[in-house]
Amino acid sequence: MARLSIGANESRDERDKVMERPGLIVAPLTPFNEGLEVDEHALRRQIDYVIQDCGATMVVAAGVETQEYTYLSLEQRKVLIRHTIELVDRRVPVMVGVSHPSFKTAVELAHFAESLGAAAVQLLAPLRPFAGPPTQADLIAYFEAIARDTELPITLYLNPGPGADVSIPDTIALAKLPCVQLIKESSRDLARVSRLIVEIDRAGHARYFTTMQMLLATLQLGGSGATMPPPGSEIARYIIDAFVAKDYERAAALQLQFALFPSKWMHRGLAPVMKAALNLIGVPVGEPYPPYASLSGEEMQALEAILRTTVLADRLPITAAA
Amino acid sequence: MARLSIGANESRDERDKVMERPGLIVAPLTPFNEGLEVDEHALRRQIDYVIQDCGATMVVAAGVETQEYTYLSLEQRKVLIRHTIELVDRRVPVMVGVSHPSFKTAVELAHFAESLGAAAVQLLAPLRPFAGPPTQADLIAYFEAIARDTELPITLYLNPGPGADVSIPDTIALAKLPCVQLIKESSRDLARVSRLIVEIDRAGHARYFTTMQMLLATLQLGGSGATMPPPGSEIARYIIDAFVAKDYERAAALQLQFALFPSKWMHRGLAPVMKAALNLIGVPVGEPYPPYASLSGEEMQALEAILRTTVLADRLPITAAA
Amino acid sequence: MARLSIGANESRDERDKVMERPGLIVAPLTPFNEGLEVDEHALRRQIDYVIQDCGATMVVAAGVETQEYTYLSLEQRKVLIRHTIELVDRRVPVMVGVSHPSFKTAVELAHFAESLGAAAVQLLAPLRPFAGPPTQADLIAYFEAIARDTELPITLYLNPGPGADVSIPDTIALAKLPCVQLIKESSRDLARVSRLIVEIDRAGHARYFTTMQMLLATLQLGGSGATMPPPGSEIARYIIDAFVAKDYERAAALQLQFALFPSKWMHRGLAPVMKAALNLIGVPVGEPYPPYASLSGEEMQALEAILRTTVLADRLPITAAA
Amino acid sequence: MARLSIGANESRDERDKVMERPGLIVAPLTPFNEGLEVDEHALRRQIDYVIQDCGATMVVAAGVETQEYTYLSLEQRKVLIRHTIELVDRRVPVMVGVSHPSFKTAVELAHFAESLGAAAVQLLAPLRPFAGPPTQADLIAYFEAIARDTELPITLYLNPGPGADVSIPDTIALAKLPCVQLIKESSRDLARVSRLIVEIDRAGHARYFTTMQMLLATLQLGGSGATMPPPGSEIARYIIDAFVAKDYERAAALQLQFALFPSKWMHRGLAPVMKAALNLIGVPVGEPYPPYASLSGEEMQALEAILRTTVLADRLPITAAA
Repeated sequence: MARLSIGANESRDERDKVMERPGLIVAPLTPFNEGLEVDEHALRRQIDYVIQDCGATMVVAAGVETQEYTYLSLEQRKVLIRHTIELVDRRVPVMVGVSHPSFKTAVELAHFAESLGAAAVQLLAPLRPFAGPPTQADLIAYFEAIARDTELPITLYLNPGPGADVSIPDTIALAKLPCVQLIKESSRDLARVSRLIVEIDRAGHARYFTTMQMLLATLQLGGSGATMPPPGSEIARYIIDAFVAKDYERAAALQLQFALFPSKWMHRGLAPVMKAALNLIGVPVGEPYPPYASLSGEEMQALEAILRTTVLADRLPITAAA
Repeated sequence: MARLSIGANESRDERDKVMERPGLIVAPLTPFNEGLEVDEHALRRQIDYVIQDCGATMVVAAGVETQEYTYLSLEQRKVLIRHTIELVDRRVPVMVGVSHPSFKTAVELAHFAESLGAAAVQLLAPLRPFAGPPTQADLIAYFEAIARDTELPITLYLNPGPGADVSIPDTIALAKLPCVQLIKESSRDLARVSRLIVEIDRAGHARYFTTMQMLLATLQLGGSGATMPPPGSEIARYIIDAFVAKDYERAAALQLQFALFPSKWMHRGLAPVMKAALNLIGVPVGEPYPPYASLSGEEMQALEAILRTTVLADRLPITAAA
Repeated sequence: MARLSIGANESRDERDKVMERPGLIVAPLTPFNEGLEVDEHALRRQIDYVIQDCGATMVVAAGVETQEYTYLSLEQRKVLIRHTIELVDRRVPVMVGVSHPSFKTAVELAHFAESLGAAAVQLLAPLRPFAGPPTQADLIAYFEAIARDTELPITLYLNPGPGADVSIPDTIALAKLPCVQLIKESSRDLARVSRLIVEIDRAGHARYFTTMQMLLATLQLGGSGATMPPPGSEIARYIIDAFVAKDYERAAALQLQFALFPSKWMHRGLAPVMKAALNLIGVPVGEPYPPYASLSGEEMQALEAILRTTVLADRLPITAAA
Repeated sequence: MARLSIGANESRDERDKVMERPGLIVAPLTPFNEGLEVDEHALRRQIDYVIQDCGATMVVAAGVETQEYTYLSLEQRKVLIRHTIELVDRRVPVMVGVSHPSFKTAVELAHFAESLGAAAVQLLAPLRPFAGPPTQADLIAYFEAIARDTELPITLYLNPGPGADVSIPDTIALAKLPCVQLIKESSRDLARVSRLIVEIDRAGHARYFTTMQMLLATLQLGGSGATMPPPGSEIARYIIDAFVAKDYERAAALQLQFALFPSKWMHRGLAPVMKAALNLIGVPVGEPYPPYASLSGEEMQALEAILRTTVLADRLPITAAA
C-alpha cells in the first residue's frame, strides 16, 4: 500500500515541508456547455484559479456530489477525470472519485486513476441500495473488495444522503483499515467531528478532513484540513495561512466569512450557490445541471453583497456605486 | 401521451376485463453468476414463475433497487432490460425502470424501452445530489424533461433513501402531470397512503400502487394494487384472488402472511431475504451482489419455518420430519 | 396482577360476550373554559356522546397528549381524572393515564386511579430527559418500578415525539412483562404494526390497539382495536359494527372516511382539528389550549364539507343550500 | 423590559467590565438522596464548586433537562429553585428555568423567580403536545404569552427532543422578540450555529450561547458563551480564560479536552456521565434518578482515565500507581 502524500510531488524534503501545512483539498465544479457536455475551456480556467489563487494542496476529480458527477455516464466521468488530471498537470496531486454502488466499477475507476498517475482515490460509504443502514461488516467488505485491487490509498468519504450515515464506531472501524488513509466528513456536527479527530487522526489511523464551516475548528483540534469547492477554497486558503502564521484572530475573522456564505442559500443546493459565486468572481462555470435552477437575479444580488464582505471582494466587478 | 394498460396486450374488451382486476406488478430479482454477470438462465426460470405462478399483470424491468440494478453499467442495465422483455415475451406488459440522476440518461433508457415495445417507464423521484430536498419545481422540471421526449406513460416511483422523500403536496402535484399515470409508493405509512389513494387514485389523477404489507389495505381503500419482488408476489396473487372473489376473510388471513415475511429479516435487506426465499422454494437466484451477504444457515432455517406457514409451503422441499 | 377487561362491568358471561367485540377505547378531549379550567359541563355532554353514540368499550382519562393533559398541574389532572370517572359513571371501564417522567408520580397517579375504581392505567414509554434513546433496560426498569406498586394492568403507550421511539425488539420485550396487558401504538407504519400484532397480540403477550387510519387493517390482522378521540370514534364504531357483522365492504367504505379526516388538517395538530369537528357536530368542546389556534373559518368550511361525506353528516346543521 | 446582565451584581462599571468576558452559565446537577428528594447539602457543595472553581458568570436553576427537573413536582421544583438561589447567595445572578407546556405554569414560575430576585428566566421552545412541529406563529404566541406577564428577560432554550426542532428562520423570528435576550442552543451543528451567531448575536437581537463541544468555536465567531453542567464548566472556565488572554493555542488544547469527555459516554446520557465525573472529582452528587443507571465500574475507570488527561486531573484521587 502506497502512502498518501498531499501537496507533494517532488523530493522527500519538500514533501515533508509541504506536509506541515494543513491540507486544502479542492473539488472543482463541473462546468457544462449548452449540450450538457463538460466545458473543458471553463474547467481549465477554474483549475488554474483553484491551484494558483486558492493554493489547493490537492485536487479531487469527480469526487463529491457537488461536482455533479452523478449525472455523467461512466465514459463522461472518465473524460472529466482525465481532463482534470491533465489540466492540473502535476502542479499538485489529484485524488480521483471512484464511488459507485458496484465495487467492480469502483475498481475499474481506480485502475483508470492509477493509469493516469492519480495520488489516491475517494470512495463514498455507500447506501444499502435496498434500504436500511449497511452493517459494519458490509462496509468493511466493500472497502476491502476495492482495496484488494488497487495500490492507491483510499479516502473514506462520509456524506449521509447520497451515502450511508455511518456511526462513530463504524467510522473508527473503517479508519483502521490500512487502505483508508484519509477521511472526508461532510457533517457539521462538531461533537462527532471532535471525537473522531481524536480517535482517528490524532490516533494515527487516518487523516481527518472536514468542510468549510468546520475548517478552523478542525485545525485547532488537530484535524488535517478540509475538502471543498471553489470559491470557498479561496477563503479557506486565507484561514489556513493565518492559522499557520499563528494569527488566530485573523483566522477566526476569516472563518466568520463562512457563517452566511454559502449557508444562507443552501436551500437552493450547494452546487447552484457555488456556481453562482464563481460566476460572480469572474471564473465562469455556467449553470447547474437541470432540473436544478440557477440563483435568481435577486438571489445573485444578495449573494454578491455578502461576497463583498469576504476576501473574494476584490474579484467582484466594481459597481457603479463604487 | 399513450394511456397505460396493465395486464392487457390484446383487444380493448379483453383489456377492460383485465383492468377490473387489481394490478400486481412484479419486479424479478436479478440473478448474478459467479462473474457477477446477469444469469440469463436463472432469470428465465424466475420470470416464468412470476407470470405463471404469481399471475403478474405487469413485469417491471430494472425498476426498483431490490432488483440490484444500481450495480450495473448502463450497457449491462440495457441487457437486463432486453432480456426481461424477451423472456416475458408479450405474455404481460413490461414497464422499464429508467431512473437516473441525469434526465438525459433517463430519456435514453426511455427510448430504449420504446424500441423494445415496453408499456411504460418507471422513474424514481430523485435525491438532490448535493443535499437538501428537491423543491416541487425541481421535481416537476425533472419529470417534464423526460416526458418531453417519450410517449410512454411514466410511473412516479417514491422510495425515500435512494430517492427523495416527497411530501404529500408535492406527490399530488406530480400526480397531476399528464405524463404520470401510475405511482409506486414504498412507504408503509397508512395515513399517508390512505390520503393519497383518495386524492390521487380515486380522484382520477394516477393509479396508486403500494407494497406487500400494504396490499389488502390498498385494495380496500380503492388503490390499484402493489409492486413487489417474488416470491412475495405469489402470496399477493392469492390476496388479490380472494379480494376479487369477495372472500375478505381469506384475503385477511393471507395478508397476515406478510406480517413476519419479509419484515423479520429486513435488517438484512430486502434483496437478500427475497433471494433466500426464492432459493428455498426452488426458483434459484443465487446470492446478493457483494458486499451484501446471504442469510446464514440459521436465518435460512427460521425463514423456511415461517414460509411453511404461507401459501409458499407447497413449494418447499419435504423435510425428513414430514 | 388483575386481568384487564374492556367493555365489561357486569357478569362474567356478559363480559366474555363483550370481549368478543374489538375494543374501542375513546379519549375524550378536554374542554377548557375562558379561564382555561376544565369545563365540566362540556365534558359531561361529550362523555355521554362518547358512550351512547360512539359505543366506547372503554374510556381513557388524561391518557393521550391530544387530551391536552400536559398543560395541567398534577391537581388539575387529578380533577380531570375524577370528573371523567364520575361522568362515565360505571357505564364502561375507565383507564387512567399516569404518564410522568418520574415513576413516583406515575405511581401516585396509579394509586389515585385505584382509589377511584379505574380498570387500568396507561403509561407512555418515556423520552430520556437528557437526550438519546432509552435502552431496553431503562424502559423495563421504569415499567417495573410502577408495576411494583400497583395491581392495575398497564397499557404501554407508544407515541414517539412526546415519548420514546421504541424499537420492535424493545416493544416485544416490554409486552412480555406480566404487568403490560395492552399496547397503544400511535404509528401508522403498517409493516411495524403487522409484525407486532403477530408477535405480541396473537402470541398472547398483550392486546394491540392502534389508531384511526389503522383500525380496519388492525382488526383484519387480529389486533384488538384502537384508541382515538371523538368524533373519530363514531366512525370507528360503525367500522367495528360492520367488521363484526362481517360486512367487510361496508367496513372498507367506512374506513375510507378516515382517509382525509383528520389527516388533511394534521399540520394544525390533532387536538385543534378534533375539537373543530366536535364543535361542528354539536358537541361543544371549545378551543385548543393556547398557544395553539382554532381552525380558521375557511378551514372549518372545508372540514365541514368533508364531514358531510361521513357517518357524521347527520349531526351537522342543515345548511341553507340543503 | 429589564436588560439581562450576566455576571453583574454591583455597579455599572463593574458590570460592564464583567460583561467583556464571555458568559459561562452553569447548570448544577440535581443531587437526590435515597428518598429521591433533593439533597440540599450536596447541592450546596456543588454550587460552591460551580462558583468558586468554575467561575460561573451565571447559574441556571432547573433550566436544562440534564438537571433532571422534569421528575419533580411543581412544589419540588420551586424548592429546588429557591435552594439554588439561596445557595448562590448573590455571588452571581441566577436564571430560573420556567419551561412548561402550559404558558400559565411558566408565568407562575416566572413570578416565583421574580419574587426571589432572579435575573432572567429560561424557556424551552416547546413540542406541540399532539405531534407535528409548532408553527412560527405558535412559538411566538407562546413566548409572548409569558413575556406579557413578567418583566424578566427570557432565554430561548433550543433542545430538540424534549423541545421543538426550531428552524433557522423561526429561531431568528423568536430572537427578534424584545423579551428574548439570550439563546441557549443545544445542537452541535456548526453550520447552523455559525449562521445564527451572525444573524442573531452579532446583529444585536440576542446573545447566543452554545455548549461544551462548541465553546471555542462560538467565542471565535463572536458568540456570547456557553451553558453546561459541571464539571465540564471547569474545563470551560480555562478555555474562556485562555481565550480572553488571547492564548489561542492553549484555548484550543483545552477545547480538545471536550473531544472524548463527555461524548464517549453519551449513549448513557449526559446526566449519568456528568454525575459520575462530579463524583470522581470529589463533588458528590449521587446517582441519576431512576430508571437511569449509574456508570458501571468499568465505565467509571475509563472515564477516570480520560479525566486524568484534563484540567480536572488534580481533583482526582491519587492512585496507588501514582
